[in-house]
Amino acid sequence: MGTGQHSPWRMETGQCQQWGAGSQHGMGIPSISIMLHELIKLLHHAKCRDVTIIRIGTSGGLVWQQVTGVPSSGLASVSLCPGIEAGSVVITDTAVDSSFQPRFEQVVLGEVVVRSTELDKDLAEELLACSREIADFPTLIGHTMCTYDFYEGQGRLDGALCSFSSEKKLEYLRRAYDAGVRNIEMESTAFAALCGLCGLKAAVVCVALLDRLEGDQIRASHEVLWEYQQRPQRLIAAFIRQRLGLGPAGRSQH
Amino acid sequence: MGTGQHSPWRMETGQCQQWGAGSQHGMGIPSISIMLHELIKLLHHAKCRDVTIIRIGTSGGLVWQQVTGVPSSGLASVSLCPGIEAGSVVITDTAVDSSFQPRFEQVVLGEVVVRSTELDKDLAEELLACSREIADFPTLIGHTMCTYDFYEGQGRLDGALCSFSSEKKLEYLRRAYDAGVRNIEMESTAFAALCGLCGLKAAVVCVALLDRLEGDQIRASHEVLWEYQQRPQRLIAAFIRQRLGLGPAGRSQH
Repeated sequence: MGTGQHSPWRMETGQCQQWGAGSQHGMGIPSISIMLHELIKLLHHAKCRDVTIIRIGTSGGLVWQQVTGVPSSGLASVSLCPGIEAGSVVITDTAVDSSFQPRFEQVVLGEVVVRSTELDKDLAEELLACSREIADFPTLIGHTMCTYDFYEGQGRLDGALCSFSSEKKLEYLRRAYDAGVRNIEMESTAFAALCGLCGLKAAVVCVALLDRLEGDQIRASHEVLWEYQQRPQRLIAAFIRQRLGLGPAGRSQH
Repeated sequence: MGTGQHSPWRMETGQCQQWGAGSQHGMGIPSISIMLHELIKLLHHAKCRDVTIIRIGTSGGLVWQQVTGVPSSGLASVSLCPGIEAGSVVITDTAVDSSFQPRFEQVVLGEVVVRSTELDKDLAEELLACSREIADFPTLIGHTMCTYDFYEGQGRLDGALCSFSSEKKLEYLRRAYDAGVRNIEMESTAFAALCGLCGLKAAVVCVALLDRLEGDQIRASHEVLWEYQQRPQRLIAAFIRQRLGLGPAGRSQH
């Protein structure tokens, strides 16, 4: 499921029949939370067992790489430079909040309850291995930071309000990177927490539409963005085919 | 603007021309926040001044009334009973969080910034006065509680997860009522905070689709709900006609 997808599909294996459904969940934690509660109730009443659920979507990337250089002074220095390009796909190992902590604070009857946001690490590794078969875009595993706000919450300078400098923004994003964050979106902590509590194996796979080191606004063309947005779907399609023991797409079609 | 409305209209007066636009903002604080940032930037670039912005939508009602009784024992007792029925329209004077405080906690670069959620009291009174001309549904002014979550956050017992009893739920909702809360939705604190900071006169007008004292699920028919959802729109339409010096709808049509 993703922010803008709605694409049901059907899968068959020799032993059992499975159905997968793509569902649009809207933007932000409250919106995905409503959808998840309703989906999980449906799964319960349908007596589904051993369910794997994957959020696919878009995100902002934090794709700096640390480079150690030895300039003419002879003193080694560490600097940051843009690393993996926009269009990279990030498989989340752990969803973290805006303080880079692996937690989701759920308010229950006015009281804050802290929940874990760990995702299924074996599933993430399986997805990464699967990505190796799709050679035309880079894929990595990393932490995903989830915020409640797109503008101030993610350090954007181009909202209706902005109370911080470009330097403060970059300092914050650098701290996020140092904490292991590789991309930023707005749903993963609630998704991880709710799926974890309900016993669903969960993964988050998002393409980074831009490198936040370089700016706040997406400047790629419509065609390029369209292709980027296909990448998580292509990876998940390949993963499903692999799970079902089918060959790569194109060889064996139903 | 509301969760499900998209209805642009045009208004003309003798001295100036004004445009109003209805815009869908999705569900929850993150979603309305994105829309507001973008709308406020548009208003800025269009050099709009003295803007009034009204969120219309649906909500859950807290419509108990305190009733003082003197039973046969002779001792006065205070009890709660259902008061104003579902379908009531609540004009928000102050948006409050899940602890019933008039504040919105905005995370900026990982730090919590607390913002006021006061709305324009004169505008709320003007809307209430306007509602008196529409005699076929009840309207009241009260606090609106805004939550990040529809199920656990609002004390619903029918989500995929529920860790509290019906008694605890009712105790929480009763405390909300005692703090002045008359309805519950998921956008008003962020809306009030952002509009206040950007100098927009703002109001929130939501119909209560159900009385949360009586349950968590909406049981009214589709036709009844459709009529309920028209009520905030009808009130705002009457308000705009009044502001423009036009008569009630039906007498003077453009």
